[in-house]
Amino acid sequence: MAENRITPRAEDYAQWYQDVIAQAQLAEAAGVVKGCMVIRPHGYAIWEAMQADLDRRFKATGHQNASFPLLIPMSFMTKEAEHVEGFAPELAVVTQAGGKELEEPYAIRPTSETIIGHFFSKWIDSHRDLPLLINQWANVMRWELRTRLFLRTSEFLWQEGHTAHATHAEAREEAVRMHHVYRDFCHEIMAMPVIRGIKTANERFAGALETLTIEALMQDGKALQAGTSHDLGQNFGRAFDVQFQNDAGEREYVWQTSWGVSTRLVGALIMTHSDDDGLVLPPKLAPIHVVIVPIFRKDDEKVRVLEAANRIAAELRDDGLNVKVDDRVSLKPGAKYYEWERKGVPLRIEIGPRDLDSESVMTKLRVAAVDESGRAVKEVRPMADLGVSIGKTLDEFQTQLFDTAQARLTAGTVHVDTWDDFVDVFKDGGSRFVYAHWDGTTETELAIKNETKATIRCLPTDGDGPEAEPGKCIKTGADSAQRVLFAKNY
Amino acid sequence: MAENRITPRAEDYAQWYQDVIAQAQLAEAAGVVKGCMVIRPHGYAIWEAMQADLDRRFKATGHQNASFPLLIPMSFMTKEAEHVEGFAPELAVVTQAGGKELEEPYAIRPTSETIIGHFFSKWIDSHRDLPLLINQWANVMRWELRTRLFLRTSEFLWQEGHTAHATHAEAREEAVRMHHVYRDFCHEIMAMPVIRGIKTANERFAGALETLTIEALMQDGKALQAGTSHDLGQNFGRAFDVQFQNDAGEREYVWQTSWGVSTRLVGALIMTHSDDDGLVLPPKLAPIHVVIVPIFRKDDEKVRVLEAANRIAAELRDDGLNVKVDDRVSLKPGAKYYEWERKGVPLRIEIGPRDLDSESVMTKLRVAAVDESGRAVKEVRPMADLGVSIGKTLDEFQTQLFDTAQARLTAGTVHVDTWDDFVDVFKDGGSRFVYAHWDGTTETELAIKNETKATIRCLPTDGDGPEAEPGKCIKTGADSAQRVLFAKNY
Repeated sequence: MAENRITPRAEDYAQWYQDVIAQAQLAEAAGVVKGCMVIRPHGYAIWEAMQADLDRRFKATGHQNASFPLLIPMSFMTKEAEHVEGFAPELAVVTQAGGKELEEPYAIRPTSETIIGHFFSKWIDSHRDLPLLINQWANVMRWELRTRLFLRTSEFLWQEGHTAHATHAEAREEAVRMHHVYRDFCHEIMAMPVIRGIKTANERFAGALETLTIEALMQDGKALQAGTSHDLGQNFGRAFDVQFQNDAGEREYVWQTSWGVSTRLVGALIMTHSDDDGLVLPPKLAPIHVVIVPIFRKDDEKVRVLEAANRIAAELRDDGLNVKVDDRVSLKPGAKYYEWERKGVPLRIEIGPRDLDSESVMTKLRVAAVDESGRAVKEVRPMADLGVSIGKTLDEFQTQLFDTAQARLTAGTVHVDTWDDFVDVFKDGGSRFVYAHWDGTTETELAIKNETKATIRCLPTDGDGPEAEPGKCIKTGADSAQRVLFAKNY
Repeated sequence: MAENRITPRAEDYAQWYQDVIAQAQLAEAAGVVKGCMVIRPHGYAIWEAMQADLDRRFKATGHQNASFPLLIPMSFMTKEAEHVEGFAPELAVVTQAGGKELEEPYAIRPTSETIIGHFFSKWIDSHRDLPLLINQWANVMRWELRTRLFLRTSEFLWQEGHTAHATHAEAREEAVRMHHVYRDFCHEIMAMPVIRGIKTANERFAGALETLTIEALMQDGKALQAGTSHDLGQNFGRAFDVQFQNDAGEREYVWQTSWGVSTRLVGALIMTHSDDDGLVLPPKLAPIHVVIVPIFRKDDEKVRVLEAANRIAAELRDDGLNVKVDDRVSLKPGAKYYEWERKGVPLRIEIGPRDLDSESVMTKLRVAAVDESGRAVKEVRPMADLGVSIGKTLDEFQTQLFDTAQARLTAGTVHVDTWDDFVDVFKDGGSRFVYAHWDGTTETELAIKNETKATIRCLPTDGDGPEAEPGKCIKTGADSAQRVLFAKNY
């Protein structure tokens, strides 16, 4: 990458992704800490906006936040057989503390089912203690060999919900409820359409009976798993002896769920909306909604223009918008436009001496229509009721981003019925969302992955995928009851 | 502790503290992870309320949040000579990851000056990049031998501000600004008066030129350091080569500050306001402001009373109050009163069939005046405008808690001029805030600590401590320019 250049998507999508992050100052590789990243203020502000909305949704569905230890005794990791198999290779291990070798080493949590199971066993005694609905915002660590900013890092930030219920039906209901919460968040706030579905046994969370997932389609045709919600059954209840006395006075193991989304959502956001000019943010997640760039030459103009810019900013803030006045004198307006476009600010206001006379301003949307000569359309807006007019434009922009992403998802989804066509989709680094028949065996799933790098993203939930229709597996020709969703994935 | 009993403060203050935490379900020792704790939902909600207010203050003073790695290369810890000496004995160390021994082990961050210094050196090049004002909400780890819930745990949650400036004057101004922000937060939100001052060289942060502190007086006469703000000078700038080009085109090391408060503030809150009946919370930090306890015998009463309780709750919520309707049928009203008093809910509403007829409710404040017969005063309030009337009462309660704590601070502070009197204050486990003269040497400071367990909490800031007047050191009789603040401490 040349300094300050953003590689076009068509040239190198992976490099484009890195350039957008670097130019918008969202994050950078830690370098000195293997596989870890620093989330810079502009990137962290997007994560904070995500957190605020998700947290509100979690609380509205009855969950409470708590904090559990970062460290987990190694012996805990081994109590649930599938869990340890899934996570053991990725653990970071503390073997010394306070200047001494530890008798039993600790793992830095890769996820907290085990330690939370331990505390649930202390807190739950009666059916009156259920349901227990807990969420934790935390950092977790999974030692990764190949990392990519936001998408896969050794340490990442996330939330992990952990709940315990008296019946399997209630636990299922909870897992489905949070699956819907995640979908609604992606649609309403991230403007990112997702397909809901069920993971195959092979892609399931280590220790779960069933994993529900939401899958998004990135601009390059690859899928990104954006969130998962697990029906844990009684697996962790048995491993950590979490029992309660039911109505009939009998002791039973609780039924549990867990569910999580992480900072990888920031990566998903970038690869859903951004373009060759840099970051594009939906207004509902933009740390700055509006940047005001004052334009002036002489000193007397400067005073008048800055006064107006600050007055307009104050008015817009009263209307609930986050506004930045870029009054730096070291940069020309054009350089400022360029910088704020890269940072994804949804709307820019340009204001100069002539605008003061006409009591109007010029505005430009981050993703604007172009006129006949190919130039981005700017709009003249009266200063009166500017907050209302901009608020309306930002609402429309939020919808426009969703509609564009939805159209791309629709256009990027195909039904495939033959192995040749299937191979064709995924050759030469290609990928799309492919609905195809599969015989239901892990063996076939792995053979397909091995030959094409495409994985089964999910068995789509009714309504999100195609209507159920029987068919023949594209690979083996065996019977299949439903098409499943294939794609290469991040 | 007998189950459900809160040990009276006069009997055993340390046990009372533990009992209050257990009975209010604020937190518990992790047990299986040495020195760590679980913060339960009620305790975490208090921390969240603290975070929300502090975060608003940090942003209002121009700071932005970011996230830095949990792990720090061990070699970083040794780059600042005093820093490593201060923190090395408390480090938890990761020596294995991803199934392999690491070539260079990592420390789990005990604080982040070193790793953040490293990134500052990458981000700062010109005076235009300054000031750089960053804050991080994070978990940190300091392996402690003797731990106490919230006050001293091996892992704790905190915020750490890290800033870089072009001049020492600007860095000092920043350190003082945040010192004031902490004081204002303690006074306005926690209703906890604090004394601002400067730490002695002996009590200073490892690597700082100067440490500013706020010190609060707990009910047992001991001091609690509630927050610190450090002038780091150029120490970390030199250690991590953080240079900038100044106006004159010369390269200079930046001047830095760091400042932090942690979950120990929850402990400070408990030991400032709570009583023998359990937790007492100032309304501005109470997760639940009002609990409504419906009172009924017959089923027809139940319907009417619950309907009214829910209607009132909705009205109060519209007025911005957090309200809980305790409609559990398994508990009698008295048991509910008892439970919510222990949890520190500031105000209780009792509502029964007769109240419906009179269109009024009975309310009781968590810390109520008592009548002639020694019984807590309850108030009858009309249902009309209940939100306004309760809002006013909660504001008064917030003020009342501060005034009570301030009166205790005043009564618990003495001026002492002789060694015999000094020893007398601290004998038999006693402690107060003692203003006494000191000769300014570390040798005398340590001798005093050795003999009495009292430490110098701070050299009080003008206006917070007594007027400067010269005198003679209580221990050596040498000259002293100013009284300093002594106490035993948490």
